[in-house]
Amino acid sequence: MTELFDRHRPMLDAALAAMRTRECWSPFPETPSGKIYGDSARAEGAAAFEALMGKPFDLPGHPEARKLGAEVSPFGPELGITYPAAPVESLIAAAEAARPALASAGIEARTGICLEALARLNAMSFAMANAVMHTTGQAFAMAFQAGGPHAQDRGLEAVAMAWDEMTRFAADARWEKPQGKAAPIVLEKHWRIVPVGLSLAIGCNTFPTWNSYSGIFASLATGNPVIVKPHPAAILPLALSVRVLRAVLAEAGLPADAVLLAVDLSGAEITRDLATRPEVKLIDYTGSNTFGGWLRATATQARIFTEEAGVNTITIGGTDDFDGMCANIAFSLALYSGQMCTAPQNIYVPEAGIDTDQGHKSFDDVATGIAAAVDGLLADPARAAGVLGAIANPATVERAAKARGLGRILRDTTIDGRLASPLILAVTDGDPACDEECFGPITFVVAVKDTDTGIARAADLARRKGAITAALYDTDEERITRAIDSFAQAGVNLSINLTGNIYVNQSAAFSDFHVTGANPAGNASLTDTAFVTPRFRRVMWRRPVH
Amino acid sequence: MTELFDRHRPMLDAALAAMRTRECWSPFPETPSGKIYGDSARAEGAAAFEALMGKPFDLPGHPEARKLGAEVSPFGPELGITYPAAPVESLIAAAEAARPALASAGIEARTGICLEALARLNAMSFAMANAVMHTTGQAFAMAFQAGGPHAQDRGLEAVAMAWDEMTRFAADARWEKPQGKAAPIVLEKHWRIVPVGLSLAIGCNTFPTWNSYSGIFASLATGNPVIVKPHPAAILPLALSVRVLRAVLAEAGLPADAVLLAVDLSGAEITRDLATRPEVKLIDYTGSNTFGGWLRATATQARIFTEEAGVNTITIGGTDDFDGMCANIAFSLALYSGQMCTAPQNIYVPEAGIDTDQGHKSFDDVATGIAAAVDGLLADPARAAGVLGAIANPATVERAAKARGLGRILRDTTIDGRLASPLILAVTDGDPACDEECFGPITFVVAVKDTDTGIARAADLARRKGAITAALYDTDEERITRAIDSFAQAGVNLSINLTGNIYVNQSAAFSDFHVTGANPAGNASLTDTAFVTPRFRRVMWRRPVH
Repeated sequence: MTELFDRHRPMLDAALAAMRTRECWSPFPETPSGKIYGDSARAEGAAAFEALMGKPFDLPGHPEARKLGAEVSPFGPELGITYPAAPVESLIAAAEAARPALASAGIEARTGICLEALARLNAMSFAMANAVMHTTGQAFAMAFQAGGPHAQDRGLEAVAMAWDEMTRFAADARWEKPQGKAAPIVLEKHWRIVPVGLSLAIGCNTFPTWNSYSGIFASLATGNPVIVKPHPAAILPLALSVRVLRAVLAEAGLPADAVLLAVDLSGAEITRDLATRPEVKLIDYTGSNTFGGWLRATATQARIFTEEAGVNTITIGGTDDFDGMCANIAFSLALYSGQMCTAPQNIYVPEAGIDTDQGHKSFDDVATGIAAAVDGLLADPARAAGVLGAIANPATVERAAKARGLGRILRDTTIDGRLASPLILAVTDGDPACDEECFGPITFVVAVKDTDTGIARAADLARRKGAITAALYDTDEERITRAIDSFAQAGVNLSINLTGNIYVNQSAAFSDFHVTGANPAGNASLTDTAFVTPRFRRVMWRRPVH
Repeated sequence: MTELFDRHRPMLDAALAAMRTRECWSPFPETPSGKIYGDSARAEGAAAFEALMGKPFDLPGHPEARKLGAEVSPFGPELGITYPAAPVESLIAAAEAARPALASAGIEARTGICLEALARLNAMSFAMANAVMHTTGQAFAMAFQAGGPHAQDRGLEAVAMAWDEMTRFAADARWEKPQGKAAPIVLEKHWRIVPVGLSLAIGCNTFPTWNSYSGIFASLATGNPVIVKPHPAAILPLALSVRVLRAVLAEAGLPADAVLLAVDLSGAEITRDLATRPEVKLIDYTGSNTFGGWLRATATQARIFTEEAGVNTITIGGTDDFDGMCANIAFSLALYSGQMCTAPQNIYVPEAGIDTDQGHKSFDDVATGIAAAVDGLLADPARAAGVLGAIANPATVERAAKARGLGRILRDTTIDGRLASPLILAVTDGDPACDEECFGPITFVVAVKDTDTGIARAADLARRKGAITAALYDTDEERITRAIDSFAQAGVNLSINLTGNIYVNQSAAFSDFHVTGANPAGNASLTDTAFVTPRFRRVMWRRPVH
């Protein structure tokens, strides 16, 4: 049972080391290159995806009452894939039946299974890229990175954190208490890791694997069977993941039903029924604050880990690289048409403008500089398609179209079916439009009295409405220090003066904790200790040693 | 600010080492000996306690609108001490005002303050013993140990765990991402520990310091101001603790109001008002399941850590030391008249009896053996007083008196004012009387079909009603193995075949995790990682290195 563990132990150890130092590391190459993944990998991945389309998806031994599935690629085609679907009762019963064996398999066996599954998922990253692309609308390169290696990184990070925590204290001890001149009292003590129960992973439409792997792998490593409930529009990436996990479990002699797929249709979701089952003790959720709030109020039998929504901001106080700043911001706004949970929405600029390496720039200079950089980035249609991808949810297209009326248009969105480029609007400080999340390719450039006001607005918004990222461009080091304090108190990670090929949207596993848990954008952080500790308990037995 | 930290660093390091190995260790001697604490320590402690009686308690600078206090020693005298009392609004405002300074003091400064406070509390253990004795009814030796060194151990354990977790990952990193032939992307990253908010510690009557220090010190070390709300009948031990903490904080240049005392009177408690304040983000609670349930349902703005009630059990399947077993159980039943959260209540014995080193013993032989051992233990009045102590709450005396009708009396309780010795009753399996907690000196010896049935009953009860301890006496190793599995699945720590000077009631800091969190007897474990991680968050700032 520990062969898999032994095989992958070096990867685990390296992950543990990286998590401590927070230095740059990954075992899963992020470049979709034939040199790394094999010359035929790209073609084979595409072929594997094609072969899945239009057919029932095979999940050997999975509970099944009927077949469901109605995914349509944001790029056009219906996927035509149906999945085994079972009633909530059957899924719970199957997971419960798998629970004792998974619990008693032990730490090393479960860890080995998780690591092997991640290695297999890595090897199929090209097929996964196609699956993610055609369910989320991400362009291929992003679908490969975010849906493949970067998601695998998050899974590995969770496994490593779970391992570290489960093995943090001695599993056995000889406890010897002196008794003066009498013989000491000697007890042997033994601790077991006791998983808490069933785990439910509620996936999202935009990042089905990246946002779900942390919870799935953390729960599995700590011994809790996982019911994976994908978004009805993005089932395939998680179905592929579930299939890999079930295969590895079965090969290791454990019940495949320790990982289950809960498929439903849009408008007939089974999420609420699953989430409120008494057997479900852990819920990992990515989605709206509204449903997150419902879960917290209703699924009180479970520990709930969430990533919800917020309003991410950029505050501009000055720069010594105006072109670099505009280009960097433009990419952050355009990437996946603003559908990342880390994408900026509000850009605070002093109404009197800022000082730059190109001299003073007025508010409009800054705003049009960013807009022009977006235009430049998207001038080449092929490049534009590769950056923007497609809109996952048609409602986002409508929102972008409607948003045109919310301010002075600095750059109009170009909408073509499910394609939509950034809409950039100028508004004044206090405009209610920019006080809420407007999910999608919508940016407000907000005129504020001065930079400190911008920092205050951005931090206050993070505190009230949540934020996963904040960015600052400034050359005044004292103000930067004040901003660091302000954003820390608002519980939001801050990126300062990013230019070049590193973006505020990016969160690197093993180094960046994704979401702080300290503001309404989510209560869980990927992956800190608090993400794994509630998933298991320690229980002791002790007896005298004679 | 780190002088205190440097001074106590060796103690911290030793605590961290003990927590990992779970071996026997404590820096705070548990023996109330003049050789250790100084020849005059006992007399000085008594004098210090006497000097407090009948006077207003001095808490320099503490918010105060009036003075409250009506403590009466279970051993007789009214304490006549009044404490500064302030409305909830004032306490919250004072704590909020102290919050920024405590947060920005940093990890080392806060840890040093906590360690220094524990060292000072240790030095005043004799005064504390008197305070604990005359508020809880514990006999002196127990009040010294549990109220002094053992409570200090729990506090130190929480500080060490908080320290370990806050420093677990690098606070700064150089993140260098290769870019092929181009220059790498290099970011500097920095993480801050951001405390979550105000912390409320709700103390209990029976173990005011032991049960509260973990939460108080964990919150303080992680930077959260703590409002300490003692039980109205056991204020003094926590008032003394608060005074020490406030003094150390002030000496370190931090606001004393980072630790506050919330005094109220029985029947006019302010606990609910405090617990539901939006500023309160952490609640540590010891008490009934009823109020624990109310907190969970109502104080949803806070993370709640509880120790609640349960039904602890002993299952007897056989023994090779019948006298030793009976004596050990007798002490566990008699100690502090069964008012420990770890005291056994139900003893499951096969109706056909058990095999022992003294031959076969019938059900009645076993039951009367235990009853006789209690009689023997309590035969000497002075010794009896030293074991039993007094009953903290008069309702417990009434409960014991009433319980006489719940079964066949094997040993009657002797009630004399606030003194009550163990009542031991025989009941049959399934009797509803033994399906609930009967807090106090009440024991049910339950006749079950066989030992496996007893194990099943005990484990099932732990799962349904909660349990902090379980004990087993058996000589059948296969059955012991099955029992270990059963109690682990019920989430209760198991002690096997204890005889001599080690008791199921005892939980040693740095080694035993007290309460597993895995059954209804509580959701928190003293002190695992989960006890400290929700008390703070990490927030990053990052910028390019040029």
